[in-house]
Amino acid sequence: MDSRSALKHQAILEAATTVFLTKGYSGTSMDDIAKLAAVSKQTVYKHFADKESLFAEIIHGGLDRIDELFSDVTGSLAETSDLERDLTALARQFVTILTRPRLLQLRRLVIAEADRFPDLGRTYYERGPERVHALLAGSLAELGRRGLLSRLGDDAVLAANHFTWLITSVPVNRVMFCGSQEGFAPEELDGYADAAVRVFLAAYR
Amino acid sequence: MDSRSALKHQAILEAATTVFLTKGYSGTSMDDIAKLAAVSKQTVYKHFADKESLFAEIIHGGLDRIDELFSDVTGSLAETSDLERDLTALARQFVTILTRPRLLQLRRLVIAEADRFPDLGRTYYERGPERVHALLAGSLAELGRRGLLSRLGDDAVLAANHFTWLITSVPVNRVMFCGSQEGFAPEELDGYADAAVRVFLAAYR
Repeated sequence: MDSRSALKHQAILEAATTVFLTKGYSGTSMDDIAKLAAVSKQTVYKHFADKESLFAEIIHGGLDRIDELFSDVTGSLAETSDLERDLTALARQFVTILTRPRLLQLRRLVIAEADRFPDLGRTYYERGPERVHALLAGSLAELGRRGLLSRLGDDAVLAANHFTWLITSVPVNRVMFCGSQEGFAPEELDGYADAAVRVFLAAYR
Repeated sequence: MDSRSALKHQAILEAATTVFLTKGYSGTSMDDIAKLAAVSKQTVYKHFADKESLFAEIIHGGLDRIDELFSDVTGSLAETSDLERDLTALARQFVTILTRPRLLQLRRLVIAEADRFPDLGRTYYERGPERVHALLAGSLAELGRRGLLSRLGDDAVLAANHFTWLITSVPVNRVMFCGSQEGFAPEELDGYADAAVRVFLAAYR
């Protein structure tokens, strides 16, 4: 792809993201996307075979960003010298990342379309929540071997799920039901994180 | 409303529920609903002013069923003579009710449309999750007064949220992302409930 074509490709993707996130899959037309990207509809079709491929590329792009966001976050936990401090820091990072408006809009969109595109929803689930939980479970299991956690049983993945849902369920579900205009003060989010760490450590330390 | 008219009203509501739950709000037309209810489109409009009113009535109907399902469930917990046993029974009831396919389809639909109809989404949130958590929080606070729970702080509602999301987050989110075809064996659901009770009691007993 030459650089002019690459720029157009990027402009179409950005326009399509905006339109899909605000109007949903059914409400979005290739015309809307072309208009917002300031290209012709033929140009859109030159880059993307159809609305479905464009939608899939956007979901995959969102997953790439989730990967970037979480790749470093869980890494150092297993080597902690102060479990409560580092788990609290991790919990606060998790809730801050996972309540970003753009990520929650993407979450809403995937959920809305999961019955129409179950493969895409499953990919999102596997590369998003499941991957984060697998990474975190690895760190928790290592903390178990170091004697800093116990009672993980043979299911560190379930413990990882308990950790992230304890932290994020209240704000994430409030946005899911009440709409993307819901916002949170950082202190409120930190409060959910800190309370979750208390519960988690009471159960697993 | 005479009985023939009442029957038609009910038939339209049932048809509309089926169509909305399978095709979403945008994908549903009053024609689809009339066809499935085996009435004319004029009859649909005689009963419901527009698609939006019909949609609102269906969401409210779903909430009435949630009310019925939970009204007895939490009531007796506060008088328990065996906290772990009764909390486990409650957790198993919660996860069984909250993973019913119809309720999860309704949940998906409300989430999908929350940015289009934020008032409806907020009503669902307040009469659904918030109401269940308030009921449960009342029982937890009473258990606190009886000395059977501690560390509830001044926020029994947060403890109630911890309880229900610990139980339901894994299966509910899996269905949200992977689609309504996901099913669960009763033993799997009981496993989530039992693990959640262990975590909850470690933190709050």
